Amino acid sequence: MKARVHITLKSGVLDPQGRAVRNALTSLGFDGIDDVRQGKYLELDLTESDAERARAAVESMCARLLANTVIEDYQIELEEA
Amino acid sequence: MKARVHITLKSGVLDPQGRAVRNALTSLGFDGIDDVRQGKYLELDLTESDAERARAAVESMCARLLANTVIEDYQIELEEA
Repeated sequence: MKARVHITLKSGVLDPQGRAVRNALTSLGFDGIDDVRQGKYLELDLTESDAERARAAVESMCARLLANTVIEDYQIELEEA
Repeated sequence: MKARVHITLKSGVLDPQGRAVRNALTSLGFDGIDDVRQGKYLELDLTESDAERARAAVESMCARLLANTVIEDYQIELEEA
């Protein structure tokens, strides 16, 4: 089973990396960019084939290692391999 | 208009960051992880409201700044604001 995980800063948390990307794009001549937010994206290949157990495992991975839940949210999508 | 951009390493390109995440998860006791690939995720708020023009602009941003197209692929999704 494949898990796709998006880890994004909670809204309201300052995103200096996104701000830097926006400024770089603007200085390259790209106009009309209101905001850029940068997050992380992870693809995990799991041997687990039960969706419920796989989701529980990935939730636990996010909470314990992948995301900093003080400032970050995570979203998990599962896909049959 | 909102654009969501996924930037991932092309398949075949070694992903040491993903490997480190997999090893860290394994050492925390999470078994059954075959592989982890790490990518970037960007959300752009654009003033452009025409989907075709927005996509063309974001394609150009990816090719010129956001992605290293030698080793990375990008995928763009657009969403009405």
